[in-house]
Amino acid sequence: MSAESWHSTVNALWAQAFVDELIRCGVEVVCISPGSRSTPLVVECGRRDEIEDISIVDERSAGFFALGCAKATGRAAALICTSGTAAANLYPAICEASACGVGLLVLTADRPRQLQGVGASQAMDQLKLYGDHVRAFYQVGQPEATADKLRYLRGLACRGVAAASGAKPGPVHLNFSFRKPLAPVDVDRSGVDAVAAKLFDEAPLAVGGRSEGAPWLRIDGADGGVEKQVVSELRDRLVAAKRPIIFAGAVESAEPWGFSLLEMAADHRVPVIAESTSGLRYGSSEASPAVITTGDLLVESGLYDELGTPDLVLRFGRAPISWPMRRWMPQLRQAEHIVVSAGREPQDPDQLACWQIRCDASRLVDDLIDELDEDGPLGDDNWFQVHRRADQQVRGHIAGQLSEEATLSAPIAWHILGESLVAEAALFVSSSMPIRDIETFFASPASAVDVLANRGVNGIDGVLSTGFGVAARRDGPTVIVVGDVAFRHDIGALLMAEQLDVDATVMVIDNGGGAIFDYLPLAELADDPERFGETLGEVYERHFRTPRRLPVGGGRFGPVEVELAETPGQLRDSLATSQQRRGVQVVVVDTDADADRALRRRVVETASQQWREHAP
Amino acid sequence: MSAESWHSTVNALWAQAFVDELIRCGVEVVCISPGSRSTPLVVECGRRDEIEDISIVDERSAGFFALGCAKATGRAAALICTSGTAAANLYPAICEASACGVGLLVLTADRPRQLQGVGASQAMDQLKLYGDHVRAFYQVGQPEATADKLRYLRGLACRGVAAASGAKPGPVHLNFSFRKPLAPVDVDRSGVDAVAAKLFDEAPLAVGGRSEGAPWLRIDGADGGVEKQVVSELRDRLVAAKRPIIFAGAVESAEPWGFSLLEMAADHRVPVIAESTSGLRYGSSEASPAVITTGDLLVESGLYDELGTPDLVLRFGRAPISWPMRRWMPQLRQAEHIVVSAGREPQDPDQLACWQIRCDASRLVDDLIDELDEDGPLGDDNWFQVHRRADQQVRGHIAGQLSEEATLSAPIAWHILGESLVAEAALFVSSSMPIRDIETFFASPASAVDVLANRGVNGIDGVLSTGFGVAARRDGPTVIVVGDVAFRHDIGALLMAEQLDVDATVMVIDNGGGAIFDYLPLAELADDPERFGETLGEVYERHFRTPRRLPVGGGRFGPVEVELAETPGQLRDSLATSQQRRGVQVVVVDTDADADRALRRRVVETASQQWREHAP
Repeated sequence: MSAESWHSTVNALWAQAFVDELIRCGVEVVCISPGSRSTPLVVECGRRDEIEDISIVDERSAGFFALGCAKATGRAAALICTSGTAAANLYPAICEASACGVGLLVLTADRPRQLQGVGASQAMDQLKLYGDHVRAFYQVGQPEATADKLRYLRGLACRGVAAASGAKPGPVHLNFSFRKPLAPVDVDRSGVDAVAAKLFDEAPLAVGGRSEGAPWLRIDGADGGVEKQVVSELRDRLVAAKRPIIFAGAVESAEPWGFSLLEMAADHRVPVIAESTSGLRYGSSEASPAVITTGDLLVESGLYDELGTPDLVLRFGRAPISWPMRRWMPQLRQAEHIVVSAGREPQDPDQLACWQIRCDASRLVDDLIDELDEDGPLGDDNWFQVHRRADQQVRGHIAGQLSEEATLSAPIAWHILGESLVAEAALFVSSSMPIRDIETFFASPASAVDVLANRGVNGIDGVLSTGFGVAARRDGPTVIVVGDVAFRHDIGALLMAEQLDVDATVMVIDNGGGAIFDYLPLAELADDPERFGETLGEVYERHFRTPRRLPVGGGRFGPVEVELAETPGQLRDSLATSQQRRGVQVVVVDTDADADRALRRRVVETASQQWREHAP
Repeated sequence: MSAESWHSTVNALWAQAFVDELIRCGVEVVCISPGSRSTPLVVECGRRDEIEDISIVDERSAGFFALGCAKATGRAAALICTSGTAAANLYPAICEASACGVGLLVLTADRPRQLQGVGASQAMDQLKLYGDHVRAFYQVGQPEATADKLRYLRGLACRGVAAASGAKPGPVHLNFSFRKPLAPVDVDRSGVDAVAAKLFDEAPLAVGGRSEGAPWLRIDGADGGVEKQVVSELRDRLVAAKRPIIFAGAVESAEPWGFSLLEMAADHRVPVIAESTSGLRYGSSEASPAVITTGDLLVESGLYDELGTPDLVLRFGRAPISWPMRRWMPQLRQAEHIVVSAGREPQDPDQLACWQIRCDASRLVDDLIDELDEDGPLGDDNWFQVHRRADQQVRGHIAGQLSEEATLSAPIAWHILGESLVAEAALFVSSSMPIRDIETFFASPASAVDVLANRGVNGIDGVLSTGFGVAARRDGPTVIVVGDVAFRHDIGALLMAEQLDVDATVMVIDNGGGAIFDYLPLAELADDPERFGETLGEVYERHFRTPRRLPVGGGRFGPVEVELAETPGQLRDSLATSQQRRGVQVVVVDTDADADRALRRRVVETASQQWREHAP
């Protein structure tokens, strides 16, 4: 056998053992961007039916798409790319995955050490390429067809998947060095098999893996529970509180503990202010009586002037997204803030917490239910009841007001979307305005909806790609709601979607640029040339507001057809049909940013006011 | 003054001093992506006429655009983005800038330390975000309106520009922490001015900068020359050589030494094998007699069987790009390889060099000319003459052959492009096939052409964005040549171009996917299902070849009109008119990858053969 044949055989065996182990560890999908250096891994993934191999040209899109896949399934998704800047394109999705705690296995191909630092083509330093934004970095050893090295490799795959999953899921980077020839030159597959067979006699497990499809290495960690005493102390605090609330912020998944938490809250009559991304709000067709969906309005309605502010805030998930909630939370400095967080950084930007409980939420909730078993309702007599009534009234007022609007706007679009969603639908919501508008204006849908978003670092990048990734791994329809700026940022994803078997509706709220900046103090200053000069206004327009419309006049964008919805009725029709259709549907809602803003203010004020007038 | 007013005033003064210093250091352009956290820097850039502020939504595009600006001008370009994944999107351009040695000043806005690691929105660890791929990282101190800190900041700006420029240019990262309020709340500009005026009395230079627009800190380094003895030894080696050649690979710029090198080579009769990206090939309408433009063909023509192979190779710039040249170079193991490199890593992937001279090429060439002053022609008698004649004949044969072709193909498109370029044009050439085809098939244009490319890490990402950046900073027309896969990868740049004042023609060679992979050994194996099975063929199609055409049927892509050129005549017309038009023009050339490949082979073989037949 020539050195060439030998090396290509070794590459093939190496990739075979590694991919085999990924499959054994439960990795189901791998997103692959074209390139030569990664050939052994790509060929092997293509050979295995147990893993779905998806081709995506742009690595940045591929990264976000894999993130979406992992979000939809709760399992780490793999990525393969070639050497060089290709790998750098994955960085945005990696940073987001790290912050939101979603597992990615980033498999970069690299050139061997002898081609580093000598001006070789497409070679750059890929060691620790993603810095501290991965849970682990492994420089994979040079491929060798020895039992020792294959055992190492199989164990490494398991360690990689464990680092990407477990108590603190996130991205993991494995950098593979392959030497040429990368394709199985000179040997057909039977040659590889022959070498494998020979090695198999010496070391059957290293070559063939453990029996019955078991992974090489099973890795279990601490179970994430907390001491009984901690739970009992938490119970004591809850019982002692007069005005306890639970705040549920964004999480990747509230499975399986969300339902138990709501049951506990209902039994003990603790209001749960749940944001849209908490996994608690649209979990079933019949909402829990404990869920408060209008927290952002209630805090502005004067409710707490009357009732008194909470004295205990038990917090799950991320810090609030909605602006009123973000303003309100720091006003509760006198309350005890108890923050429950699993693996990721404590979610307490205002540094209010007196107590952080770092544990698996599921275990904590179960234990707490046991501890509270003999306790009755918590808190003051009317605390829970008033919350519940206020929430229903305000929600009803908003729905009533929005139903009457004849002009299409961002709030109306959200209202209609809530009414139009079919069963088993998922929503992927962009950062910026959509993630805020859903909070207030989304009509409670008739059936359960998964609401997903990139709320790790809250970027507006990769929104379409992540949403398509979600869509690819779900059975029901997926609706992506995105503003025009984020839509532009990830426009390449439309080209990707053309190739993939993805069914999704993209609802673009085109308010003509970065309308969210209109809510910043800068916008006011920019509007006051007498005090601040013309320049500030120009700067605001050019670099913040960036006013422009999507060029969708022609009815299509590249390969994708685009519908313009100009009235509430048209939007209703578009959403109804698009959820039934195959492929990617884009529906653009042109809105006037100023009118959106005025309507938002009016709806919120009227709802609060009406509540005050009719309050008991 | 309230704390709020004070902090916003400090932010404004801070940005003012920094941007002022950038301008004093010669930074002319800043690409800004929208975001709130960077407000003080953005507002200040907008206030200053001396720096052009360009708005680009997608940071990845902005990064490459700035790279293009820096390439076109030879001066570092600045980038401003907000906190979070926005900054991660700059990574691909940063890696390329680092490898190709082009100055970028990456100014990321960050949240202050108290919002790090506590779940604050849009906050992530941005310290050393780009690892070893920047020349320097500076965590900029918290803004303060004190003379000490302003002096530090002004000096820091100068150190940043120096690190991005100088002997080893590249990207530099400055991470700014701004605290709220970010807009100049409560104070109008006169308030800032009043604070500045007060401070000015104490420390006029810190506030106002040095007199006469001088930078705070002038930084000069080693002048990059080498000892006289080194030059004299180099002269001795050249004089001793019988068959010396100079190989000129890709450089960012051959100014000002390229012309001197060619003169020296012509005077002393040393052939210069110059690749398209060497800056030597299309430098003036009358090519230097020393320049050999057909090196890739000559090495396959048998020329050196007859003449003997080179015994000395003096190398400038990057290692060869063309495949024949890359195969040939390592065959010259017996030759002395002397590699001249300035700041960046030695360009010697085959590890052939016995001598690396790390210096400023300009100084070396000048000194060498002096040393060689009394020497006559170098090398064997007919060495230079045969090279020259062979080059002319082969070039003529190719042009002749291509002129006769009636069907449009990639080689023909290159030939026509060469004939169609107007004066003062620049070419930006994508990696993958275009950078290889230009080598052989580009007709020598009538006037000087700057040929630019991303040859640091040779990615296919950011090609349009970089090309548009080049176009933005040049007076004449710019033509970007790109394949369909790279075009897809950077499709968002078309949306960007709509907003910018950029005149450019994009010639897309659509060969229906990743045709370059057809040249890999894998393609042959994939074509042999009997030996390798059906799966390999499928994997090849799905993950490497990715066969598909650009969906340009509708005659536009988003905002940009697209012309399809189907015949040589149509392409000629399109190129002629598009170079006259304002804005971005896209011309798509649909080619058949197999026919392209056959024609490439045929032209090369015929040219070599004809040369052999007519050789003296």
